[in-house]
Amino acid sequence: MQASDQNTVFVGSKPTSNYVLAVVTQFKFGSTEVLIKARGKAISKAVDVAEIVRRRYARDAEVADISISTEEVASNDGRTFRVSSISITLSRQADRT
Amino acid sequence: MQASDQNTVFVGSKPTSNYVLAVVTQFKFGSTEVLIKARGKAISKAVDVAEIVRRRYARDAEVADISISTEEVASNDGRTFRVSSISITLSRQADRT
Repeated sequence: MQASDQNTVFVGSKPTSNYVLAVVTQFKFGSTEVLIKARGKAISKAVDVAEIVRRRYARDAEVADISISTEEVASNDGRTFRVSSISITLSRQADRT
Repeated sequence: MQASDQNTVFVGSKPTSNYVLAVVTQFKFGSTEVLIKARGKAISKAVDVAEIVRRRYARDAEVADISISTEEVASNDGRTFRVSSISITLSRQADRT
């Protein structure tokens, strides 16, 4: 069910518009499903990205699925800590133009 | 479908543990469904709250639904701006103790 990595946009510390462009580009190149992933504080930005794409650029795109989970991350000093994550799947019909 | 306001926890700028306690308390008082809502940067914290409740305090609770949307908010100077929001519904069986 999960989109391949080619269809995944990992949201991090760059400006929101970078990720919006990445998702829109995926759809332009014919993807029917794009997975937006983020961890920690970037989760809010991932929701912004999904909402901006859906409302401004790909109005036929729908939120097909949202899931949240907890990931274990290793820090540089060898300890592990937990961080929340989100996956938002946007889907749209194949491009008819 | 939406839980009544009594079952809703609005996540804002307080520490995460405050909201975790609020959700756990709802379940303790017999709620079978608690709605966790947040806007803007607090969205990441809302996901943390849901994950912490589910993993540590109410292990039989499940994420029944997650939805995202965009809300229009009026600022003090009368202008409106848009902000992303999230609603996470946690549900569990009625308390059997």
